[in-house]
Amino acid sequence: MAAAGFSASGVCAGIKKSGKRDVCILAAGKAVPAAAVFTTNAMAAAPVVVSREHIAGGTARAAVVNAGNANACTGEPGMADARAMAAACAGALGCAPGEVIVASTGVIGVPLPMELVLPGIAEAAEALDAADGDAAAEAITTTDTFMKQTALTVSAQGRTYTVGGMAKGSGMIEPHMATMLAFVTTDAPLTPEACGAALRSANSLTFNRITVDGDTSTNDMCLLMASGAAGGPAIGEDSEAYTPVAAAIREVCERLAKMIVRDGEGATKFVTVTVTGAASVADAERAAFAIASSPLFKTAIFGGDANWGRVVMAVGKSGAQVDPAKVDVHFAGILTCSGGTGLAFDEDAAARALTEPEIEVSVDLHLGGGEAVVWTCDLSYEYVRINGEYRS
Amino acid sequence: MAAAGFSASGVCAGIKKSGKRDVCILAAGKAVPAAAVFTTNAMAAAPVVVSREHIAGGTARAAVVNAGNANACTGEPGMADARAMAAACAGALGCAPGEVIVASTGVIGVPLPMELVLPGIAEAAEALDAADGDAAAEAITTTDTFMKQTALTVSAQGRTYTVGGMAKGSGMIEPHMATMLAFVTTDAPLTPEACGAALRSANSLTFNRITVDGDTSTNDMCLLMASGAAGGPAIGEDSEAYTPVAAAIREVCERLAKMIVRDGEGATKFVTVTVTGAASVADAERAAFAIASSPLFKTAIFGGDANWGRVVMAVGKSGAQVDPAKVDVHFAGILTCSGGTGLAFDEDAAARALTEPEIEVSVDLHLGGGEAVVWTCDLSYEYVRINGEYRS
Repeated sequence: MAAAGFSASGVCAGIKKSGKRDVCILAAGKAVPAAAVFTTNAMAAAPVVVSREHIAGGTARAAVVNAGNANACTGEPGMADARAMAAACAGALGCAPGEVIVASTGVIGVPLPMELVLPGIAEAAEALDAADGDAAAEAITTTDTFMKQTALTVSAQGRTYTVGGMAKGSGMIEPHMATMLAFVTTDAPLTPEACGAALRSANSLTFNRITVDGDTSTNDMCLLMASGAAGGPAIGEDSEAYTPVAAAIREVCERLAKMIVRDGEGATKFVTVTVTGAASVADAERAAFAIASSPLFKTAIFGGDANWGRVVMAVGKSGAQVDPAKVDVHFAGILTCSGGTGLAFDEDAAARALTEPEIEVSVDLHLGGGEAVVWTCDLSYEYVRINGEYRS
Repeated sequence: MAAAGFSASGVCAGIKKSGKRDVCILAAGKAVPAAAVFTTNAMAAAPVVVSREHIAGGTARAAVVNAGNANACTGEPGMADARAMAAACAGALGCAPGEVIVASTGVIGVPLPMELVLPGIAEAAEALDAADGDAAAEAITTTDTFMKQTALTVSAQGRTYTVGGMAKGSGMIEPHMATMLAFVTTDAPLTPEACGAALRSANSLTFNRITVDGDTSTNDMCLLMASGAAGGPAIGEDSEAYTPVAAAIREVCERLAKMIVRDGEGATKFVTVTVTGAASVADAERAAFAIASSPLFKTAIFGGDANWGRVVMAVGKSGAQVDPAKVDVHFAGILTCSGGTGLAFDEDAAARALTEPEIEVSVDLHLGGGEAVVWTCDLSYEYVRINGEYRS
């Protein structure tokens, strides 16, 4: 959250039973160009519905976030609560409620404890003076085991621009055409249209390319705000500076997306699944997601078993075009299947390779130029424990 | 396997490391009307490819099955091995190889040990004289913890017909348009066309309505053979007897499908997911499968947590048409969400209900007449253990 022109805060409002920080504000000094992408889940939560309205004009002043309660499946009272969160934040900052993006994360179907949330927003607004990105990053977490923040700088049109980001996410992760809760800021003077283009492009190759458990949340949201505080002429999609700034935004999104996977509930391994040679990019995505979300594949990774047959099974069920006689599989760097036929391979070497914390599995379909990379994690006992206990 | 006109056997050929029975023959006294459905997995195993050819004429004399090795991703040698299995069985029975259906189940990508399989087939053929359905049912299992057999009788056109069946399956279960390894026999004189119609109809509402882990095997197959040994005129789709006999076939398939779910890898609960009020049956299936295959839902069931928010999340991500303001959810018999809004409910009563071995979860979308029932199980520590270790 190092980009100039923004401040952030996080406070303990008492929503989380743990007593950890749970209300966060991220604010620019004025309304700035912004864009957001949201969950495609048809049961979208109230804050998603409200934020879709508020971002429509292409600018935003602030985002207000609570963790510990998703404000999903809460009916008209939930909609009123989401609007009240925006209004409370706007009141504290001196802006219009329509300039405030609202996000919530946590348990579904329980009314928001507004008697805790509203004082929390007031306190967070006061805390903005002593900007504290760490506190903000903590305040948006739920089952996360670490805070997810990153920043980098990029030079363009003779200036240095910073792109920062924070995210939360650990379970209910397969964003599909949307994304997880993530907030990306830049001091580059992007236009609203350039914000939207850069965010959609980055999102499609980062947050939309991860899966922990194949489940898509009701509350996913990624917000990009561009303060312009670094100065220089406005950056539109046609500007020379657009490409490097957009690349930096993508890089920040990719780092955050990978952090979410590394913190996947119960994860012990980080897995990169690459599919090449597909008939199309869509087919490559289908095949890669089928592998990455297969419980049989994920438990084999957990168990350190080079069970590449499960990779082939997943490719075959994915709906992607496949010629069974052409499929090659590399499992942890070892060619285990060539032309659709299993090879004898060094099981000891494979077992050693599978003790590494990062595993690469790649499939070449030898049909065309479609490629996709999907990041995922393994499925462990701990995943079962966390999710057998989470709500209570 | 009580239907007259069939015999079955199972022997220990040494393919399974455990030393359990692993080669099975199911035979009629002559070629009889038959039908089969197969996996839609694009990486279909060699025995699936061979059996598709052999069933094309609408009759079959026998099925030969091995467990412990799937003969999948085994290239041209695997195809030759599948054909050799049919030929060996045909030679022993004195029929044409094209009259023998071949099935395999077990590890993917390892050449079949034909030096064990072929003597096993010869031994199984000799054992047919002392028909032993239990031995056959054992010989087709892999990670199954119990044998899956059932039989019932139905009266039609003044005669009593028997329908029997056996199945295997525990993991890699979400058959989708195909089915698991299952063999259904009847002594009713069904025509080949009636066999096909009855099997497809039964399959679509039974084996195609279960999921353990959302993964679709390369080897799924369900075979129906009709010996006609009970006598009477041929039963076509227009015959009065077709309806009761087809209903009995569906009932046998439903029992076997439910047994597969009850024996789902690591399962501790049997879960019935019902979606009503969908805009179409396809939408109801989408929503029900999204719930039933959600790891978050399945771990909540394991943990005994009435986390109905995960049901709503799954419905919302399913792609089914949804009006968020109309969704009702019953969780273990308790109304937890009405009109898309969470209700206060008796958590203690819910916790008690969730200690039962059988759980019902139902969703009413209040949009139309589409309904679907899907059977599944929970996701436990034991699932992770079994699948972290299976191949080795």
